[in-house]
Amino acid sequence: MLTLAPGVLDGLKYDERGLVPVIAQEEDGTVLMLAWASREALDATVATGYAHYWSRSRRELWKKGATSGHLQEVVAVKVDCDADAVLYLVRQTGPACHTGSRSCFS
Amino acid sequence: MLTLAPGVLDGLKYDERGLVPVIAQEEDGTVLMLAWASREALDATVATGYAHYWSRSRRELWKKGATSGHLQEVVAVKVDCDADAVLYLVRQTGPACHTGSRSCFS
Repeated sequence: MLTLAPGVLDGLKYDERGLVPVIAQEEDGTVLMLAWASREALDATVATGYAHYWSRSRRELWKKGATSGHLQEVVAVKVDCDADAVLYLVRQTGPACHTGSRSCFS
Repeated sequence: MLTLAPGVLDGLKYDERGLVPVIAQEEDGTVLMLAWASREALDATVATGYAHYWSRSRRELWKKGATSGHLQEVVAVKVDCDADAVLYLVRQTGPACHTGSRSCFS
């Protein structure tokens, strides 16, 4: 179970689509990807301990790895100083990128 | 002088405001901040070797550290697999965050 300070997710500045950008970073520091989360996705991440996002292309809640098996166990959820960006610190199973690369920034 | 593959910045998917999200990461792996860049900001970054962004609050091109002195020397500019996010690998002078913290995600 991930713990967050009370009200942190309420205080986030979601954009006009109701989304915030999320950086997924491996524990060794590697930035794996940048994706987007809705409040529902953040709640699911905190509740399950696995990274959830909002797929802008499919317009649906997206559990990372639900199809591929390339799950992201979330160790910590961090919010930036002005509460408009989120960082998931993760343990990635398999490659994070759909191309098969470890990182989408490879 | 930073070198990028030809056409990389032309191929970026800018959002409806003409912006892309940019992750600034220190060479040791620390994620310092998430900000936004216009094409003009990316061009200025590549041309000068110092991180430029688009300030959404001030609605202007923003050379990081121009006022504070907390410049970001950019070692590399990376684009993600679907060309809608950018990563600046940087050498940060002083704290990256306006709060005085090293990272905006502290």
